[in-house]
Amino acid sequence: MGGDYAPEAAVKGAVMALDAIGSDSRIVLFGDEEKIKSVLASEGCPAERFGIVATTEVIEMGDHPAKAFQAKADSSITVGFGYLAKGAVDGFASAGSTGAMMVGSMYAVKPIEGVVRPTISSIVPTIAGRPALLLDVGLNVDCKPEVLAQYGLIGSIYAEAVLGIERPRVAVLNIGEEETKGNAQTKATYELLKAESRINFVGNVEGSYLFSGKVADVIVCDGFVGNTALKMAEGLYRINTALGCRNAFWDAMNYENVGGTPVLGVNAPVIIGHGCSSPQAIRSMILSTEQVIKADLTAKLQRAFQN
Amino acid sequence: MGGDYAPEAAVKGAVMALDAIGSDSRIVLFGDEEKIKSVLASEGCPAERFGIVATTEVIEMGDHPAKAFQAKADSSITVGFGYLAKGAVDGFASAGSTGAMMVGSMYAVKPIEGVVRPTISSIVPTIAGRPALLLDVGLNVDCKPEVLAQYGLIGSIYAEAVLGIERPRVAVLNIGEEETKGNAQTKATYELLKAESRINFVGNVEGSYLFSGKVADVIVCDGFVGNTALKMAEGLYRINTALGCRNAFWDAMNYENVGGTPVLGVNAPVIIGHGCSSPQAIRSMILSTEQVIKADLTAKLQRAFQN
Repeated sequence: MGGDYAPEAAVKGAVMALDAIGSDSRIVLFGDEEKIKSVLASEGCPAERFGIVATTEVIEMGDHPAKAFQAKADSSITVGFGYLAKGAVDGFASAGSTGAMMVGSMYAVKPIEGVVRPTISSIVPTIAGRPALLLDVGLNVDCKPEVLAQYGLIGSIYAEAVLGIERPRVAVLNIGEEETKGNAQTKATYELLKAESRINFVGNVEGSYLFSGKVADVIVCDGFVGNTALKMAEGLYRINTALGCRNAFWDAMNYENVGGTPVLGVNAPVIIGHGCSSPQAIRSMILSTEQVIKADLTAKLQRAFQN
Repeated sequence: MGGDYAPEAAVKGAVMALDAIGSDSRIVLFGDEEKIKSVLASEGCPAERFGIVATTEVIEMGDHPAKAFQAKADSSITVGFGYLAKGAVDGFASAGSTGAMMVGSMYAVKPIEGVVRPTISSIVPTIAGRPALLLDVGLNVDCKPEVLAQYGLIGSIYAEAVLGIERPRVAVLNIGEEETKGNAQTKATYELLKAESRINFVGNVEGSYLFSGKVADVIVCDGFVGNTALKMAEGLYRINTALGCRNAFWDAMNYENVGGTPVLGVNAPVIIGHGCSSPQAIRSMILSTEQVIKADLTAKLQRAFQN
């Protein structure tokens, strides 16, 4: 149970998710058992509807992620990753310390063999109605072209398996459409993706078409550019909301409806929620975790990188 | 007279600008004299109200900018830069070939001594009501920290002289507020700007606060990131307009009201207009050129880099 409003928001969100998940799915809660049961009671929800794993420690936002992950061995994140690594749960999501979630992803479940650098991605809405996937959105801020090219393949597999997009169009986020445009990094990435026969590479996409849905379903960029784009969109969402401009497109930009950030390229489904997650956001996060598990994404990624 | 709708849009925009410029300013039009006079006649505007310099060639969008700038010696851009370089006009603006405008800036009026790389910038609106300056927005896509640090000084001088902002707050566009956040480039830039005593450096600004006006008046980034941010904003402006979300904030995002992109760090005022400039956009471009001239920006920049 992590996040700024843990465990209340997390437990309430889990209760909200109960009616939406499949009958063959089970939500397991990691955290302070007493508090979890107390929130469940106040929600009028029988504790038996969940698996509960009692933990006693909390990795705080101020903690050093790697040190705390080890030192606080009975924190919900450390215990959760232990369950994930041994297959006792099929996926793990938390709105707790992002740093600790990354430590768990990299050292407990580990990168898929062949993946140079795992990545975090974000689903962005488009006015065409179907979602697009932007990656990386903040993990690797200095990316080699080889890493970005792998993101193209990872993103393509995710878009097909999880978002249900057939032959997803993969593009490089760039400052011009032409092959010769861009900085040294994007030009080299373009060449590598052009040679990648397993994806439907459509070339460059400019920032102006990021949310149009017209050019690409999977948009590849380094973590600096992706994080900036995402934060800019969040800022403009807040401005629009304050100015009374609301509609389905901008509502879809609201992180509460996005369901967290999948960590891609590691040996199990991991989803990182927004620190200030509301119950609604936790519900979305749980549902997207279930979706990634049921899409068998990890096995599909592992097979792709076997060669 | 350049731009997709030249010379009609350019001449009409110049006519619109007449009533807004100072009584001591004079607009000089470079282009096909006959066509210019014909549009002026159809607008009911006496040709005497303008200076007109007849040119016979046009640098097309498909032309190689550097080659065309030399080969088409009687194009409006080449002739205009000749006038600018010898001081026969005080500033030069065109919605014609961006590439040729840059060639003219770099080889006819030349970079200010001490400026490693001139830059192009964009004024962005904020919900606080006062504009901010983003630079670079597309010229230098692979920037050394030293170049970004100079942008901080150049932007600060522009914001003070042209936008009238006292002690403008200068920030690095980054993926976190803390000094230690970012990629190799932004971390090194942070250190250099912190040591620059002539500016009011306020640290990092995240993309979410780019349009808030809360953190910074001058936002420094490389041309890849800046161009992507600008194009993303343009795309979201179009989406908002299509969805019927209009208000003063988003209207200010409309390039027609922005008035073109100043080239900063060269020895004379140069403003590049949007290729598809409407008369309204041309009017804004002319007014912002007058503003840069009257602010004595070039001399202020030259003095700053003398040391």
